[in-house]
Amino acid sequence: MKTKKIRVVHYGLGPIGIETAKYVLKKSNMEIVGAVDISKDMIGKDLGKILDLSDDLGVVVTDNARQLLSNVKADVVIHTAGSRIKGIFSQLEEIIESGSNIVSSAEELLFPLDEKSDAVQKLTKKALEKGVTVLGTGVNPGFVMDALPLFLTAVCQDVHEIHVERIVDAGTRRYPLQKKIGAGMTPEVFRAKVEEKALGHVGIEESLMLVARNVGFSLDEVQVTIDPVFAVKPVKTDYFDLKEGDIAGIKNVATGISGGRTMVLLDLRMYIGAEDPHDSISIKGNPPVTVRIEGGVAGDQATAAILVNSTPAVVDAKPGLVTVKDLPSPNFRI
Amino acid sequence: MKTKKIRVVHYGLGPIGIETAKYVLKKSNMEIVGAVDISKDMIGKDLGKILDLSDDLGVVVTDNARQLLSNVKADVVIHTAGSRIKGIFSQLEEIIESGSNIVSSAEELLFPLDEKSDAVQKLTKKALEKGVTVLGTGVNPGFVMDALPLFLTAVCQDVHEIHVERIVDAGTRRYPLQKKIGAGMTPEVFRAKVEEKALGHVGIEESLMLVARNVGFSLDEVQVTIDPVFAVKPVKTDYFDLKEGDIAGIKNVATGISGGRTMVLLDLRMYIGAEDPHDSISIKGNPPVTVRIEGGVAGDQATAAILVNSTPAVVDAKPGLVTVKDLPSPNFRI
Repeated sequence: MKTKKIRVVHYGLGPIGIETAKYVLKKSNMEIVGAVDISKDMIGKDLGKILDLSDDLGVVVTDNARQLLSNVKADVVIHTAGSRIKGIFSQLEEIIESGSNIVSSAEELLFPLDEKSDAVQKLTKKALEKGVTVLGTGVNPGFVMDALPLFLTAVCQDVHEIHVERIVDAGTRRYPLQKKIGAGMTPEVFRAKVEEKALGHVGIEESLMLVARNVGFSLDEVQVTIDPVFAVKPVKTDYFDLKEGDIAGIKNVATGISGGRTMVLLDLRMYIGAEDPHDSISIKGNPPVTVRIEGGVAGDQATAAILVNSTPAVVDAKPGLVTVKDLPSPNFRI
Repeated sequence: MKTKKIRVVHYGLGPIGIETAKYVLKKSNMEIVGAVDISKDMIGKDLGKILDLSDDLGVVVTDNARQLLSNVKADVVIHTAGSRIKGIFSQLEEIIESGSNIVSSAEELLFPLDEKSDAVQKLTKKALEKGVTVLGTGVNPGFVMDALPLFLTAVCQDVHEIHVERIVDAGTRRYPLQKKIGAGMTPEVFRAKVEEKALGHVGIEESLMLVARNVGFSLDEVQVTIDPVFAVKPVKTDYFDLKEGDIAGIKNVATGISGGRTMVLLDLRMYIGAEDPHDSISIKGNPPVTVRIEGGVAGDQATAAILVNSTPAVVDAKPGLVTVKDLPSPNFRI
């Protein structure tokens, strides 16, 4: 039986975009029909070169998304070119306009907090008009701190607190991430970067709200804190050489409170030299559920995997801005 | 905002049915409109009495499902009255005929292995005709050994083996379960019961096939073994008093093999005195994912929870015999 392949355009060829394109190449039910990036080094080159393949793919990187999309009639655009809705609004608008569905790694798309914002309303209206589905997903947000805890509550008759702890050894991750978490910064610089929102994990509040909204917790207050984690002993990576007491990374905690009680607590620590990295989820309820993911789900490979594995359901879904909770859950498929 | 409540009929008032009804009573978006059981002790009694409530519910237990269903116009029947499709065929047929959706704990409904059987074809045809959705789910099968492992593969770019281990301390479970697992039997009786298929966990093969089919493993062979687990020291429950060397329970293993390699291994051990009960899931792939559920998800409460928590999506779903993979994943909701 020959089924029609899903036609994919990659929008954004940073580390995640590249990893995603490599994975799509392995899928027999998908084909890459276009690639978009604004980097001068990439425009006009064959995607095969960007991916370090021995052969060209016959897909030339362009910065003209509008033209590409009107030519190729993609089923889905895998979008990995930004975190915040404001920053990617015009990109999304253009993609929707072309009639292509979207799977995006943009953290704010996981659960648009400000549903009434002009940007979200416009995107929703246009998506419905064009019959296009837009999904934001990833490992975090999108899985470890939201979709998986929600999934685990399926076996509960009552839930009164959800606590997720995610400890990532940033020393094993690529340079941008090690830098993003403030490693090696002075406390003053760290604090200033927090103030200007240049530090911290985008998406933690979205995860929290996705969980709270689906469980039905009505929160009075959401607190988000960002603090440094200090090296407890000297630690060296390819990029950083930290002494004891240096800033090794970040502790980013989101707390959802109702009637003075903590209902959802998401505790994310990403730092160089983290021992015993793991994800743990504790559902306090009836029955309680306590889950630990040894080593944690981390890395660009996992992010690329969930973006691509989510694609078939998005192509089939009803139009609009949807969340991971609106679709059948994704899984790996040969 | 007042939304219409989901009208529920409970079909089967064994331990799971009773637990399920108690949970439905707590849900503000559901109401119980009927209850069916064949037990002479229950027929004609108010469901409140069966559930040990102080007040009557105005719902009288009947053994005449056909009449009840034609009177009450239920949105969904929660069916907990059997394991095998053959045994419950006429019940399901009658429910579908009435136009009500079905959420069933029947293990064989998780993934009807023999899709071409007369029974499955008839049920499918009638469900489509009547616009009715039929789902089989539960904790196991339905969650620990199938839906959850599949969910975890969402972050994988490749999967070459899925291994689930579930260790249940049967000593903490109710009497029928302790008996069902062969505790206290002589080896001869145990073996004879295995031969006549009176021992073993119904559903392990269904879990295996649900996993394999969704991941896309094409299996050459499925092996299912059932062996006794012996007590390593004396152990006593409310119902059994076992010496060292007595049969304490069961080890039920399903293995899916392709090209001589194990692709899926489901290892279920339920025995009295099991130390360190847990569920563990190991996805061998890229990246690998290793998950442990401390204490395991066990107990009738969890089973009742997932049946009820799955109900809203079933009411909304497209008609036919569906699996847990066809619907948005359930979660607890206040």
